[in-house]
Amino acid sequence: MNVGFLGLGTMGKPMAMNLLKAGYRLQVWNRSQDPVAALRAAGAQAAASAREAAENADILISMLADDAATRIAVLDGGVLDALKPGAIHINMATVSVTFADECERLHREKGIGYIAAPVLGRVNVAEAGQLNILAAGAPVDLARVQALFDVLGQKTWRIGERPSQANAVKLAVNFMIGSAIGTMAEAATLARGFGVAKADFIDLVTSTAFAMPVYKGYGGAMAAERFEPAGFKLSLGAKDIKLALEAAETVNVPLPLASVLRDNHLDALAHGEGHLDWAAVSRVAGRRAAQES
Amino acid sequence: MNVGFLGLGTMGKPMAMNLLKAGYRLQVWNRSQDPVAALRAAGAQAAASAREAAENADILISMLADDAATRIAVLDGGVLDALKPGAIHINMATVSVTFADECERLHREKGIGYIAAPVLGRVNVAEAGQLNILAAGAPVDLARVQALFDVLGQKTWRIGERPSQANAVKLAVNFMIGSAIGTMAEAATLARGFGVAKADFIDLVTSTAFAMPVYKGYGGAMAAERFEPAGFKLSLGAKDIKLALEAAETVNVPLPLASVLRDNHLDALAHGEGHLDWAAVSRVAGRRAAQES
Amino acid sequence: MNVGFLGLGTMGKPMAMNLLKAGYRLQVWNRSQDPVAALRAAGAQAAASAREAAENADILISMLADDAATRIAVLDGGVLDALKPGAIHINMATVSVTFADECERLHREKGIGYIAAPVLGRVNVAEAGQLNILAAGAPVDLARVQALFDVLGQKTWRIGERPSQANAVKLAVNFMIGSAIGTMAEAATLARGFGVAKADFIDLVTSTAFAMPVYKGYGGAMAAERFEPAGFKLSLGAKDIKLALEAAETVNVPLPLASVLRDNHLDALAHGEGHLDWAAVSRVAGRRAAQES
Amino acid sequence: MNVGFLGLGTMGKPMAMNLLKAGYRLQVWNRSQDPVAALRAAGAQAAASAREAAENADILISMLADDAATRIAVLDGGVLDALKPGAIHINMATVSVTFADECERLHREKGIGYIAAPVLGRVNVAEAGQLNILAAGAPVDLARVQALFDVLGQKTWRIGERPSQANAVKLAVNFMIGSAIGTMAEAATLARGFGVAKADFIDLVTSTAFAMPVYKGYGGAMAAERFEPAGFKLSLGAKDIKLALEAAETVNVPLPLASVLRDNHLDALAHGEGHLDWAAVSRVAGRRAAQES
Repeated sequence: MNVGFLGLGTMGKPMAMNLLKAGYRLQVWNRSQDPVAALRAAGAQAAASAREAAENADILISMLADDAATRIAVLDGGVLDALKPGAIHINMATVSVTFADECERLHREKGIGYIAAPVLGRVNVAEAGQLNILAAGAPVDLARVQALFDVLGQKTWRIGERPSQANAVKLAVNFMIGSAIGTMAEAATLARGFGVAKADFIDLVTSTAFAMPVYKGYGGAMAAERFEPAGFKLSLGAKDIKLALEAAETVNVPLPLASVLRDNHLDALAHGEGHLDWAAVSRVAGRRAAQES
Repeated sequence: MNVGFLGLGTMGKPMAMNLLKAGYRLQVWNRSQDPVAALRAAGAQAAASAREAAENADILISMLADDAATRIAVLDGGVLDALKPGAIHINMATVSVTFADECERLHREKGIGYIAAPVLGRVNVAEAGQLNILAAGAPVDLARVQALFDVLGQKTWRIGERPSQANAVKLAVNFMIGSAIGTMAEAATLARGFGVAKADFIDLVTSTAFAMPVYKGYGGAMAAERFEPAGFKLSLGAKDIKLALEAAETVNVPLPLASVLRDNHLDALAHGEGHLDWAAVSRVAGRRAAQES
Repeated sequence: MNVGFLGLGTMGKPMAMNLLKAGYRLQVWNRSQDPVAALRAAGAQAAASAREAAENADILISMLADDAATRIAVLDGGVLDALKPGAIHINMATVSVTFADECERLHREKGIGYIAAPVLGRVNVAEAGQLNILAAGAPVDLARVQALFDVLGQKTWRIGERPSQANAVKLAVNFMIGSAIGTMAEAATLARGFGVAKADFIDLVTSTAFAMPVYKGYGGAMAAERFEPAGFKLSLGAKDIKLALEAAETVNVPLPLASVLRDNHLDALAHGEGHLDWAAVSRVAGRRAAQES
Repeated sequence: MNVGFLGLGTMGKPMAMNLLKAGYRLQVWNRSQDPVAALRAAGAQAAASAREAAENADILISMLADDAATRIAVLDGGVLDALKPGAIHINMATVSVTFADECERLHREKGIGYIAAPVLGRVNVAEAGQLNILAAGAPVDLARVQALFDVLGQKTWRIGERPSQANAVKLAVNFMIGSAIGTMAEAATLARGFGVAKADFIDLVTSTAFAMPVYKGYGGAMAAERFEPAGFKLSLGAKDIKLALEAAETVNVPLPLASVLRDNHLDALAHGEGHLDWAAVSRVAGRRAAQES
């Protein structure tokens, strides 16, 4: 089976590598050439363009930064014309539901399957092939690509038959992470207002009621005021909160907690903190309370 | 050492029982007589009043419902006059910071130590003597009562020297729990707007990024729409969110996420849902999106 | 008819003066002596205490700063014991609904009428006897004091028979003023984000869709960044927003816009802006957007 | 001077009529034919397409429903190719700032002037030629079209040189109107929680501190629960709040009050109230407090 793979960023690269190791023939493409070399060394073919990577593919996987990057590479890049009828495109990036719906329609018009399969897990999880895969699309298509998912992840969650459903769920999860960060920030600011050090409070909660990686990871950065290098950039968190609200808007669902988070992220962006780690959005709570950081 | 114990509710009863088992002499009091019998059977003496339970106590523990119940039993009930100078009163209930400050002042005037020691953990944790104890007060007093804390909990977290600091931290933690519930509710409502069943979404998130008791417990109730019997009543959650906001107000800390939660709880109370389990506040999100529950 | 008058602040002084001019015999009291002299010069008798001002009063009017000041002067000051049975106390201050309910009960127990009659209008309106009076209490009591209201105001609005109803309405109006300020601030910050000067935007809106005193007054201060001397202090606005939320809480009414305003006022208080004019809360919006003021 | 006029809806029709009366030669176009007849009877020429209306125009005015309608008629409809170099297009509709920026760029590439000139005022104001016109664009272009503005409005407010500035200001004003409605709704719900009839409260506030058309108009509808026929549809209000938030997002300005309004509008849309008058968004506050309407 020929697999095309577009997007060899922090997540895409280890995912592609795992597919290679599992014996798949890969044609890979990335906008910049840096990550391509490693894949070639491991046996992948380098395509000169997204279109070329798609030409012989039975399955095309894309793991690009966002809607815009996917639009440029796939929709504007001629990928749909290059793919064979009957091929399947699996979009594993976190994109908007509106874009997912548009992609589905455009693929269907060309007789190409379209699956949305965003993932849960950071780089180390991707490397271990232990991602949780949130997959939505036609059941027959999902069945055809399950073997690839089994290489990439520990579990595939079938979300539904409309691809955008998986994107909605992924955005809902990221909103929950954003809320965990924002809530911990407010709570730590309250504690600090009573003279309890932020680090002590975070140690307490992440050792007791909230002893789990999401809280420990972002809480640790918050406690240490260590926001560089960014594990996941604040600006990306801001984008996902925005996409969650936009998704909710299309189905008339009010999300007042997400609205507060959105305002906090704009506050952080206005203060030039978009390049920092997502945990840095915690500064907003302290700033509003006039607490020195 | 003589220990007085006021308040034998769901939490107080197993805590008092553990102290008895550890060999302490207990004089217990409760407003209603029902839980007293079990303690007597286990060797405790029953006091006719809070005041009587305090008379010979070296240490007095109170675990009463809220500010009002503590005010009636302790402040209005003559407990401060009954306690010996040098005695220590440990208030383990979740009370307001303002009330804690008032208690501290009144005890100090009588030469009685006052420790705030609210706890993290539900009934089963209390039974197992595995609570996390958030303790604040004079270090010399804390040292004197540590042996009792060791019976009741797995760990004592020293929060500070001013008792209300521990109450502020406890309220901050409960706000975090309330936000976890409210956030999960919004996220599930978003998913449901895209045709993904609430139970499926909650199963997904509590198996992956949010695989922890707080989310699993409340999420399970939410998924099953099973809100009775209440493990922890929505009306109590509403009270704690309110107390967290009031605590923050005294130190000029804005808590916009908590403000949203407060509004949601009022919405639930207005709809007659205060007696249900805290997880029932999730209905607010669904109701606003006009989703049938 | 003997009228006692407690509280000769910026509002109380001109109100008392108008009653004197209308021929009423006044016994006045104020915590500080400064404003008393002017009233004496105009024919009022100065009382040595709130209690003394109440002793011969058929009608007692109080216009004190807040709950606490009223509690000290009236409830703790022995005024209820001093008033004759059948006397009526008109509380014209902006107090909490809870305090109003407590006052009503205590007065009723003594056979004294209690009317809540907070007012709309600033000092110049009070001087002109053109206040809008929001009155609630027993109809028979309201009828007895209408002649005094006719001296003080242009119109008496009968709100209901329970005094706290008038306080709730007054707080609702002040919340609306706070929201007008906060909204204008957000809108001006948005305009400024597009390079439109704040003063130009405010000139536009207060000359067109929002050409009215509330917007012009606070907007003018905002446009000029002129917050001293304070016409109405930000800290008092913060208090009224808080009281509006507390009133709403007693009847389970969510007020999400008021919640946002509350957070903004805490932000301003945390930044040491409580002594400035209420319009200064507009700074919060600009600060969050990192706009230089 | 030849004037093309696209969009003869409730606002566009009286505006076009006023230009005719002032002696301008008009070529008019509307998607549906109904309103065209009246204009022809008054001396306008009917164009078969937007493109045709643009062909001989020195000035082209468009007053179409929204971004989408303008995109279809103007950008996709070939209007830019039809307009003569040196012609000026005045877009008087309430469109997004992003669309305004896109329009400006596309017009500039063709050598055509682009002015944004959204207006303040309802139909009766348009009929009277008393609109307030918020105009932004190149000063030389603005000077050329001032005579037309003088026919349509009582005053032209020069907002800036970038067209989208005028759109941002218009959205900021509409957000203020939305906040006035939403605030009055919350305040009335609070009053009603204390047994004060909504109509009485609204009569009070719109006769005193908020005695102005915006509050009287929407308040009157709210008091009478009379939401049909819609003067301005709730769904359009929802759109404008959304566009204000999107505009603010592009310049990193948090608008927490607008965020609350957005959620309330989604709540109303979810409950099928989008076709009602904007004042109907007040129902959300009552519904959350479980007050019968």
